[in-house]
Amino acid sequence: MAKFMDVHHNMKGITREQLIEAHQNDLAIEADERVHFEAAWADPESGVVYCLSEAPSAEAVQRIHERTGHRADEVHPVPLRV
Amino acid sequence: MAKFMDVHHNMKGITREQLIEAHQNDLAIEADERVHFEAAWADPESGVVYCLSEAPSAEAVQRIHERTGHRADEVHPVPLRV
Repeated sequence: MAKFMDVHHNMKGITREQLIEAHQNDLAIEADERVHFEAAWADPESGVVYCLSEAPSAEAVQRIHERTGHRADEVHPVPLRV
Repeated sequence: MAKFMDVHHNMKGITREQLIEAHQNDLAIEADERVHFEAAWADPESGVVYCLSEAPSAEAVQRIHERTGHRADEVHPVPLRV
């Protein structure tokens, strides 16, 4: 398992409720791919959303996001953390 | 005070030691701007680094990063968090 940061770039105007709903939808199915979404941060003004996860691969992260209707624009492994 | 995520895009090959040193350098002077860098995640392969902070403004975050020699390419307020 590894850590990943994925980024969505076109979420302008996202509300707190929409972020919570998207995250809950991911959590509901993440076990299918042995992914766990730990946190997400959003900037409604620029429309960027960052999601931190633990997963077996970037593809697994993306499959969950695709199934819940919000494909990530980037998925990066982040093996280093301070 | 608000939360910020800043992003550096040209850190290919960054090592764990370099990430720790950069973070320590930020921590050493962050109080000058009432910033606190909470965490950083790095992908040495793509060269992207994400830093999560609490700060009075994006400019304050950037001033600390500039003084320690690693200006951020993006600084986004992230008022929403799940």
